[in-house]
Amino acid sequence: MSVKVYLAGPEVFLPDARAVLDRKIALTRAAGLIPVTPGDLEIPPAPTKRQFGENISAIDEQMMNSADAIIANLTPFRGLHADTGTVFELGYMCGQGKAAFAYSNVVADHYQRILAYYDGKVATAADGRLRGPDGLSVDDFSMKENLMLDGGIASRGGSWVTHDAPAGALYSDTTAFEAILKIAAGRLLRQ
Amino acid sequence: MSVKVYLAGPEVFLPDARAVLDRKIALTRAAGLIPVTPGDLEIPPAPTKRQFGENISAIDEQMMNSADAIIANLTPFRGLHADTGTVFELGYMCGQGKAAFAYSNVVADHYQRILAYYDGKVATAADGRLRGPDGLSVDDFSMKENLMLDGGIASRGGSWVTHDAPAGALYSDTTAFEAILKIAAGRLLRQ
Repeated sequence: MSVKVYLAGPEVFLPDARAVLDRKIALTRAAGLIPVTPGDLEIPPAPTKRQFGENISAIDEQMMNSADAIIANLTPFRGLHADTGTVFELGYMCGQGKAAFAYSNVVADHYQRILAYYDGKVATAADGRLRGPDGLSVDDFSMKENLMLDGGIASRGGSWVTHDAPAGALYSDTTAFEAILKIAAGRLLRQ
Repeated sequence: MSVKVYLAGPEVFLPDARAVLDRKIALTRAAGLIPVTPGDLEIPPAPTKRQFGENISAIDEQMMNSADAIIANLTPFRGLHADTGTVFELGYMCGQGKAAFAYSNVVADHYQRILAYYDGKVATAADGRLRGPDGLSVDDFSMKENLMLDGGIASRGGSWVTHDAPAGALYSDTTAFEAILKIAAGRLLRQ
C-alpha cells in the first residue's frame, strides 16, 4: 500500500530550506509514507513575478490533489499565528476530506499567544466575552490555533504535537515532526 | 437559480459582530445571492470548552459544504496576515473546487506588509533571495497575501478587492465587500 503525504510548512522560507525539506522527506520515507513537498517540482518560468507565483500555487495544488494526507507545520510565523500559506493548505486538504495532522515548534497554545500579543490585557467585557483592549473577542477553547484548524484536524481523526524547539531552530527542529509522523504513519498505514 | 455564498471573516470577533454580519447578509441578498455565515446556526452546548469549539468548527464546515462560493475578508488580523480561521475556510472551499472571492480593508500588499514588519530591513542575501534580518525569505510576487491564497482565488476565476477602511472601521467597513460582492454576483449569476 502506498500512502502519499503532503508536507506543508514555513521551512520553505529558511536559508537552508532544501536541507530541512530533505531531512523531513527522508524521515517520512523511513516511516513508510511517500512524501510530497513544495519544491519537489520545477516551477515553469513566467513573464511576471505574479504569474510565477501563480505557477507555484498551481503546482502545490496539484501535489495536494495527488496526496492522501497532510502534515502541517503550524509553528507561529511572523506573529502569533501559523503561516497563512500552510493554513490554506491545511484547509484545502480538509475540504477534500483527507486526513490532517499538525505540529508546532511552540508549545504555548492559541489563548496564551493571544494573551501575550495583548500583553496580558484581556478582560471579560459587558457581553460576558473575553476581549482585548481593541474590543476583539479572544477565543479560549483549549486549542492550539483558531478553532477551524484544531476542529478540522480532530474531526478527521488527526492530531497535533507541540514541542518547544531550541533557540535558533524554530522552523528546522524535527522533534515534533517526528512525533506526529509516527502517529500519522500508525493511523494511515493500518487502514 | 439560487447560488449560496459563504461569508467568512474576522468580523465575528467584533463587539457588534451580529450587526456587521446582518449588514453583510442584507447586502448579499440584495445582490441576488444567498448568504450563509458563521453565527447563523445555534451551536449545540458541550461539556468542555474544546468540545464547544469543535461543534462550531463542524457547523461551519457543514455550511461551507452547502455553499457554492466563498467571499473571504482577508483584512490583516492581529498582525500582518489574514485571520487563520478565514484562511483555512478559503483553502477549504478552494479544495472543493468552489469559486473564491476576497477583500481586504487594507490596501498595502503582502510584500509591503512584510517590509513594515521588518522595519524595512529586507535585503538581497547571498543566495539572491530577499530576506529579513531573521534570514527568512520574503516573497515578492505582487500579491496581496501568501501566493497560495492569491493563486487559489485567481485560478478559480475569482478576484480580490482592497480598500483602506476609515479609522475605527477596520473590520466593519463594507466598501471593499460591496465591490467584491458586485463582481462575485456578476460572475456567479451569469452561469
